[in-house]
Amino acid sequence: MKLKKILLPDNEIPQAWFNIQAVMPNKPQPIRNPATGEPMKSEDLYPIFCEECARQELDTEHEWIPIPEPVREQYAAWRCTPLVRAYDLEKALDTPAHIYFKNESTSPSGSHKLNSALAQVYYAKQEGVTNVTTETGAGQWGGALSYAAKKFGIEAAVYMVKSSFNQKPYRRSIMQTFGAAITPSPSMSTRAGKDLLTVNPNDQGSLGCAISEAIELAMTTPNCKYTLGSVLNHVCLHQTVIGLEAKKQMELAGEYPDLVIACFGGGSNFCGTAFPFMRDKIKEGTKTRFIAAEPASCPKLTKGKFEYDFADEVGMTPLLPMYTLGHTFKPAAIHAGGLRYHGAGVILSQLMKDGLMEGRDYDQLDTFNAGVLFARSEGIIPAPESCHAIACVIEEALKCRESGEKKTILFNLSGHGFVDMSAYDQYFSGEMTNYRPSDEDLKRFIASADALNK
Amino acid sequence: MKLKKILLPDNEIPQAWFNIQAVMPNKPQPIRNPATGEPMKSEDLYPIFCEECARQELDTEHEWIPIPEPVREQYAAWRCTPLVRAYDLEKALDTPAHIYFKNESTSPSGSHKLNSALAQVYYAKQEGVTNVTTETGAGQWGGALSYAAKKFGIEAAVYMVKSSFNQKPYRRSIMQTFGAAITPSPSMSTRAGKDLLTVNPNDQGSLGCAISEAIELAMTTPNCKYTLGSVLNHVCLHQTVIGLEAKKQMELAGEYPDLVIACFGGGSNFCGTAFPFMRDKIKEGTKTRFIAAEPASCPKLTKGKFEYDFADEVGMTPLLPMYTLGHTFKPAAIHAGGLRYHGAGVILSQLMKDGLMEGRDYDQLDTFNAGVLFARSEGIIPAPESCHAIACVIEEALKCRESGEKKTILFNLSGHGFVDMSAYDQYFSGEMTNYRPSDEDLKRFIASADALNK
Repeated sequence: MKLKKILLPDNEIPQAWFNIQAVMPNKPQPIRNPATGEPMKSEDLYPIFCEECARQELDTEHEWIPIPEPVREQYAAWRCTPLVRAYDLEKALDTPAHIYFKNESTSPSGSHKLNSALAQVYYAKQEGVTNVTTETGAGQWGGALSYAAKKFGIEAAVYMVKSSFNQKPYRRSIMQTFGAAITPSPSMSTRAGKDLLTVNPNDQGSLGCAISEAIELAMTTPNCKYTLGSVLNHVCLHQTVIGLEAKKQMELAGEYPDLVIACFGGGSNFCGTAFPFMRDKIKEGTKTRFIAAEPASCPKLTKGKFEYDFADEVGMTPLLPMYTLGHTFKPAAIHAGGLRYHGAGVILSQLMKDGLMEGRDYDQLDTFNAGVLFARSEGIIPAPESCHAIACVIEEALKCRESGEKKTILFNLSGHGFVDMSAYDQYFSGEMTNYRPSDEDLKRFIASADALNK
Repeated sequence: MKLKKILLPDNEIPQAWFNIQAVMPNKPQPIRNPATGEPMKSEDLYPIFCEECARQELDTEHEWIPIPEPVREQYAAWRCTPLVRAYDLEKALDTPAHIYFKNESTSPSGSHKLNSALAQVYYAKQEGVTNVTTETGAGQWGGALSYAAKKFGIEAAVYMVKSSFNQKPYRRSIMQTFGAAITPSPSMSTRAGKDLLTVNPNDQGSLGCAISEAIELAMTTPNCKYTLGSVLNHVCLHQTVIGLEAKKQMELAGEYPDLVIACFGGGSNFCGTAFPFMRDKIKEGTKTRFIAAEPASCPKLTKGKFEYDFADEVGMTPLLPMYTLGHTFKPAAIHAGGLRYHGAGVILSQLMKDGLMEGRDYDQLDTFNAGVLFARSEGIIPAPESCHAIACVIEEALKCRESGEKKTILFNLSGHGFVDMSAYDQYFSGEMTNYRPSDEDLKRFIASADALNK
């Protein structure tokens, strides 16, 4: 029988995360204090984040950061995740390409998000923090954080974008099952929320606003720290377990990827998958191409601008140097809620600028076409976010059919779609539509970032 | 790091299913033609089932039935499933017991049901069948059959109990994503459905009625066969991959179970988990106890009667010798839809009669208490069905705390609860209730079976 999955035992869970900042040809530009314009140090982040995460955020020295043993023990609930050869997808596409995917959907919370949630909560607990807070859009991150908080015995408060709170009751229920307190955002519990609701009592919320609320709570509550599920450097760092395992597994399969593909919202699953292979590109000159697949409705890599911008909507965060559509950008209501974010992470933005990776955008309908084909070939119903990666994989595999090239493609299946079935319903009903921002809208929103760079 | 999971590589997927009928101390009593009372032969089942399944159903000779290679290849999409040590649940219970679970929730369809769906559809395809039909209550089986049909390239028609069709839209969407045709039952597409709807146009359906409709479709459609997700001998046979893998894995863990526990509806996951260990009990006299955990609202093992009864509500099936509450029994609307069935499988009923196993029933609220504790300890939100097994495990582990006994407990986590979150919502809302049939009701329903045994 030909091997379908490459497995690794618990004791092969990586012992250290890979910190790409230590090997980047050009280090990321500093993050800046919006009031003074001064570069910020780790200490400046302590009021918001726990200290170890703040240190990791700006660590450009240590290539390897040890994974604490209690975090590895929690990882063992589902890691190492399988590397799977998508034989039946290859067959359906009649492609000579070899397609592999790392199956992060096997996590208890259903996506890769738990890799960082456990790390962030562990450090918080170590530092005497009793409460963590965060925002969630699609609910994947909120579910993961709730789970991690329960496992390490601290309380979690999650601000959930109000439209998701109402449309995704299952995600809310998952967080509730793990014992978190969930507040629809905007809420009256923060200044940021009150300001928005005063202007518009029917405000349905956004990820940017929920971030503002969560940060405000963390800054005004003793022993409470803020956590984030993507974008930031330490989050991408924690996610490198994906790529580190995949490297070992590809080696066991006797192959090396020509292409590494992942969907892209803030960068957490893309960076986690790509960085360990990008290390080879930087250090040994391997020719692998890295593609971040983003929604056409929120095209920060293909249509955004590299400049300083806020990470949240209200403007409470430091200024980050990143590809952005402007912090006031309003992403359309696509089902891939995890990809509805205006900016790209700092590291990834620098790598993009330096030509080490590329971005590509996909229309919603194309991503669901791809997701359904994948489900019917490989059996796993993918999360709407992951459908973007699959659309890109299919595009590349079909190119191989044309050219006859036998490329090895690796992608990350970031999560399953069991909690997103209403999106598939809409797809099958024929009522799903595409969204692309107009050039005028893009210009107008990007101007909100431009203003900060003068 | 202590090992949390015992994994087996793809090539350790069992090569043969274990047929307990070959080693039972007392063979099952024959199934009978309801019209003549005559014992039925495999050939008599050919109009309904595909021939190989019909042969397996009545095979009391061959202890091992080879698993076809294409089925093993499809199993490899997720099998072997992990055996997991529930360290954190042990800790939460402060028990000296060692608790292991076989994690069948990692299947693409989210439960163990796929083990038999793939086998049944494979044989159907081999025999030139172009369409398969079935019923589904909770939707786990319907999803698995839809997936299997898509993988082997035949069409699937699923009759879904109308109340589930409306209450569990996600399950319906999963089947749709895998390309099946789904009809709410009772429907006007069959005589059985029409008869019920004529009497009561608002009939919300039952598993028994959906079975009647699916069988009728199979019998009246060329090249169409009926498939079933539980109860029958060949279904339990296919599920033995669970226990066969678990035996190898327990051996690797250096332990042997004192208790084997699984939830119980018709028997598929219980039999699949228990039989390979029960073989040791029959052949070598091991002392393992086997407990089937059923809902108090549908207590066929604890309160049913062993006699001949129909497997469906309308009375289209052969008569089966089994523990039954009567084929007219109306199970209460508990969330564990997969356990809402009036009878127990033929083999299991015989084993129960012979004292090789025991049944125990649990109230709905107790099962959700158990499920939430499990989710918060082990991270996986269990399906409402699986919560019954967990309630039993917790009861036994707490007995060990009392007695100080260090028992080894193995249970089957038959599926995850991602698509059942509305049940958890009800639990947390405080509005969930228990159901127990009254003695009078039980007597009345069992009389519908009594009448067939005179």
